[in-house]
Amino acid sequence: MNEGEVHLVGAGPGDPGLLTVRGKELIQQADVLVHDALVDSSLLELNPQAERVDAGKRGGEHTLRQEEINERLADLAEQGKMVVRLKGGDPFLFGRGAEEAEHLRRRGITVHVVPGVTSAIAVPELCGVPVTHRDHSSQVTIVTGHERAGRDEDRIDWAHLAESKGTIVVLMGMGNLRSISASLLEGGMPAETPVAVMTEGSTEGQRTLVSRLGTAAEDVERAGLKAPGIIVIGGCVERMVTLGDLR
Amino acid sequence: MNEGEVHLVGAGPGDPGLLTVRGKELIQQADVLVHDALVDSSLLELNPQAERVDAGKRGGEHTLRQEEINERLADLAEQGKMVVRLKGGDPFLFGRGAEEAEHLRRRGITVHVVPGVTSAIAVPELCGVPVTHRDHSSQVTIVTGHERAGRDEDRIDWAHLAESKGTIVVLMGMGNLRSISASLLEGGMPAETPVAVMTEGSTEGQRTLVSRLGTAAEDVERAGLKAPGIIVIGGCVERMVTLGDLR
Repeated sequence: MNEGEVHLVGAGPGDPGLLTVRGKELIQQADVLVHDALVDSSLLELNPQAERVDAGKRGGEHTLRQEEINERLADLAEQGKMVVRLKGGDPFLFGRGAEEAEHLRRRGITVHVVPGVTSAIAVPELCGVPVTHRDHSSQVTIVTGHERAGRDEDRIDWAHLAESKGTIVVLMGMGNLRSISASLLEGGMPAETPVAVMTEGSTEGQRTLVSRLGTAAEDVERAGLKAPGIIVIGGCVERMVTLGDLR
Repeated sequence: MNEGEVHLVGAGPGDPGLLTVRGKELIQQADVLVHDALVDSSLLELNPQAERVDAGKRGGEHTLRQEEINERLADLAEQGKMVVRLKGGDPFLFGRGAEEAEHLRRRGITVHVVPGVTSAIAVPELCGVPVTHRDHSSQVTIVTGHERAGRDEDRIDWAHLAESKGTIVVLMGMGNLRSISASLLEGGMPAETPVAVMTEGSTEGQRTLVSRLGTAAEDVERAGLKAPGIIVIGGCVERMVTLGDLR
């Protein structure tokens, strides 16, 4: 029996054209595709023969717990299978991909990583928002909004971020937008700071809402935008007027 | 005559396998490839028939000035050509791609953007450094080290960054590593903060140096690492011990 291996592959933001060349090749060669909920089904269709394992997490409801995913990946590789672990965006940006790779390494399994196009930069870009721009910002901070602002266990220092000179991109923050905005306002960020919220970025259903920090949470609710979404905070949002949809 | 158009395409960190599927297709269809110095020549070889324009910048010496690049792109498109503007990494992250797109829009030229895999995340990743990790950091700040620390025109607030709870990735900072480290130390970041410096990431020549903030500049000089390189600052650098080379 061949020795199995695991490839952690970044699936990009959704559009299959934004998958990497190597990622596509590996998907086509895989015996098993272990995928997240966010991964577009057209990517799985690249290899209809492959066994599929849905390791998706939807709004906190885990189809498989992280420990189970780790074990499953290792078990499949030990059965001699060529496993592609498909993760939305990039595998090492909030994807817990590093934990999966560490687990596999500890079990002595061959593991490779194929970086992907991250939604944090690509989705704003496709909507006409450059996360850096000479007229606005020489830095960008990408942060998870999943950890609840204001809670004791919150590891994000929103007051510190409120004083950042750069663009802020919040991933997985749609559900906490109200408390995130409140924390940033409390930290001294001006209420008129431009904010853009993007859903289904890079796909047919792409939607963008432009607002201000003081009213963004309310506007998103009124517009009925649903998670997952990407929140961009900073002056560079204004470039959207000139750039528009760049898909 | 057909109407010309420009596609701003992210070339990724260097490895041709990390180009996107759409990026590859567009390169193969192009009449002209306008490329940066950082773009791997194997990407240009994907279309040997295409006209090539070197718009590269090497350490401040511009082959073409930005305004000239903007004009050239517009002129080529107005001649009815299908132009692919290839930029290292992602076109909208410190690439001045947004300025090029804005110029083209103003001239009424059709422009599309194809995001790329950014070196800021991918290169650390391939070297075994996840820029976010549950045990270390829930945020990452990507910053240009090109603007000289300590100068009046410096738009980066290094003292503020020194207090960041997250990972810091510095692009184009090799030449300023000494002043960047000094600014971060002055801002209160501990001298023992782990630092990794990576050159030629994702390619055959990939090299990594692991150090601490207090000694990184010296160590890089002694090791003879040359720009361009990527500097990662933060606890997540420690994961490299377990993860190692993940190419």
